Amino acid sequence: MTDLIDTPPPATGKIMLVGIGPGSVEHMTQRARDAIAEADVVIGYVTYIKLVADLIEGKEIIRKSMTEELDRAVSALEAARQGKKVALISSGDAGVYGMAGPTYEVLFQAGWTPDDAVQVEIIPGASALNSCAALVGAPLTHDFCAISLSDLLTPWPTIARRLDAVAMADFVVALYNPKSGRRTRQIVEAQRLFLRHRRADTPVAIVKSGYRRRQNIVFTTLDQMAEADIGMLSTVLIGNSNTFIRHGLMVTPRGYANKYDMADGGSTRDGEKAGRSLSTGLLGWLQQLKLEHSQGADVATLAQRHRLPPDYIQAVLAEPDELPQEAVATEEDVA
Amino acid sequence: MTDLIDTPPPATGKIMLVGIGPGSVEHMTQRARDAIAEADVVIGYVTYIKLVADLIEGKEIIRKSMTEELDRAVSALEAARQGKKVALISSGDAGVYGMAGPTYEVLFQAGWTPDDAVQVEIIPGASALNSCAALVGAPLTHDFCAISLSDLLTPWPTIARRLDAVAMADFVVALYNPKSGRRTRQIVEAQRLFLRHRRADTPVAIVKSGYRRRQNIVFTTLDQMAEADIGMLSTVLIGNSNTFIRHGLMVTPRGYANKYDMADGGSTRDGEKAGRSLSTGLLGWLQQLKLEHSQGADVATLAQRHRLPPDYIQAVLAEPDELPQEAVATEEDVA
Repeated sequence: MTDLIDTPPPATGKIMLVGIGPGSVEHMTQRARDAIAEADVVIGYVTYIKLVADLIEGKEIIRKSMTEELDRAVSALEAARQGKKVALISSGDAGVYGMAGPTYEVLFQAGWTPDDAVQVEIIPGASALNSCAALVGAPLTHDFCAISLSDLLTPWPTIARRLDAVAMADFVVALYNPKSGRRTRQIVEAQRLFLRHRRADTPVAIVKSGYRRRQNIVFTTLDQMAEADIGMLSTVLIGNSNTFIRHGLMVTPRGYANKYDMADGGSTRDGEKAGRSLSTGLLGWLQQLKLEHSQGADVATLAQRHRLPPDYIQAVLAEPDELPQEAVATEEDVA
Repeated sequence: MTDLIDTPPPATGKIMLVGIGPGSVEHMTQRARDAIAEADVVIGYVTYIKLVADLIEGKEIIRKSMTEELDRAVSALEAARQGKKVALISSGDAGVYGMAGPTYEVLFQAGWTPDDAVQVEIIPGASALNSCAALVGAPLTHDFCAISLSDLLTPWPTIARRLDAVAMADFVVALYNPKSGRRTRQIVEAQRLFLRHRRADTPVAIVKSGYRRRQNIVFTTLDQMAEADIGMLSTVLIGNSNTFIRHGLMVTPRGYANKYDMADGGSTRDGEKAGRSLSTGLLGWLQQLKLEHSQGADVATLAQRHRLPPDYIQAVLAEPDELPQEAVATEEDVA
């Protein structure tokens, strides 16, 4: 009988931040589908709600407009505090320019901690850059960046500095939120900054509504990209200096040609070993740097020659020589 | 009867480049599962084959070691030429440091074109940076980069220049292949380059085997990260200057505080409008720049003040004034 006078357990609501991937149901993860299935309430931007329409019948639906991100998070917390399970829907990955950030900001503001009755789960998905890359070929096989051109929350100089830095350092770049009805000049400025460092014919792919009904893919070049049809549902992929387009596919080589003679059936080049660092890898480069220094090249000359900051050159020259290392792990490195 | 003497249709093989996500079956997409189900042959690095063991019973399995990426692609092409359906398995996303690149390189080398009888499909998945971010909080809510520290195919100066550029431009950074038995100093050099631009207490998360049985997450700081336990199955996430760790969660604010007074219930700050560019967004910044210039600040001074290249400042000052734009689209911008 004592059970009857116990207080009921606290309502244990949950907020699930669901990345639904590009928008077609077959590219959602099982966990994303399950999360939506177990939700009492589904909250999201109207377009994303439409994309999962056949999974949400009979549930409480809260549609929000694009600008109401914090509002969506507040609604989610309110519902979860009532003991409900809430699925907050983001296209792509919930963590990449998605709802995960705003939600934690609202939760912390409300005094939430991980010990709270309201639990939080983030369900990862393929982000727009992954989906768009899959549709155009293999552009992201090497180092890449994501930059949003939206200046609604970020000052332009911050965005411009980032564009300048990654154009210079030869990253493949995915531009999110490249253009909207009101924001038309950001893409022109991005182009201007890139053209300071990159060739005019650098390949660019513009993917609109990837894996959705109105999917549209355009290949162009850096000097033409600002004239292309670009909108809020577009992602712009700019290649690095090695990226090429062949047979309608955009590919960034991984660097096998640095180690293997591809024309010669893939034999290893002189001085290179499969499964080991390049001769111009860190230790080989350090040796070379010290040799050049011992032969009279000063720090300023070396900095210019290797296009690295003088104080970095100075610092690595000051390090004691590295002894040749024996393999410790049994697992080989990639490539 | 004429049908009987027709030549048989050409064998139509297919190569499916499957990104399986972090490795747990529930975080695979339906399309990834279906692709493996319809495959005659499954090719992959032994560790990845183990991760999908319960999906591949009865199929021809070709296990390859880590170093045999080109070899895996060649085997895939050979099998597809025989009319087989081949699933080439990558962890994460097949396009991000995965098999998509090497496969197209091998295909082009072999004279393949999209008109070939062998079809190619890339199936996107959540990359390591998406999965690791979901496990640690919301670190990727703002501009981010992926950089591989492996120098097996990339010269060190290229990697070092990229580290230096993105450290300076305040990106959140995910380091792939941060360390191996043989490559132990790359992470130390990455730290050195970052410390030139970033605070010693910049938050860092190290995620090992995310969503797998031996998952391990460590939070540390930039000045301590090289001492942490890091291996080939780790991803290192370095925050930007606004990233913080609270209650065991790593969060990068999206920038709402630039527009809204969060302490005051989220009212819009003076001079800012919901759904519009910041007052320091592109057009507002251009106005300010022209004002400062008209008040006597020269290009060199402005470049230093705004931390942007002088020739970029020069170029935007030379542009005619932009007229205030009316909204064209009905769809609002993000945030």
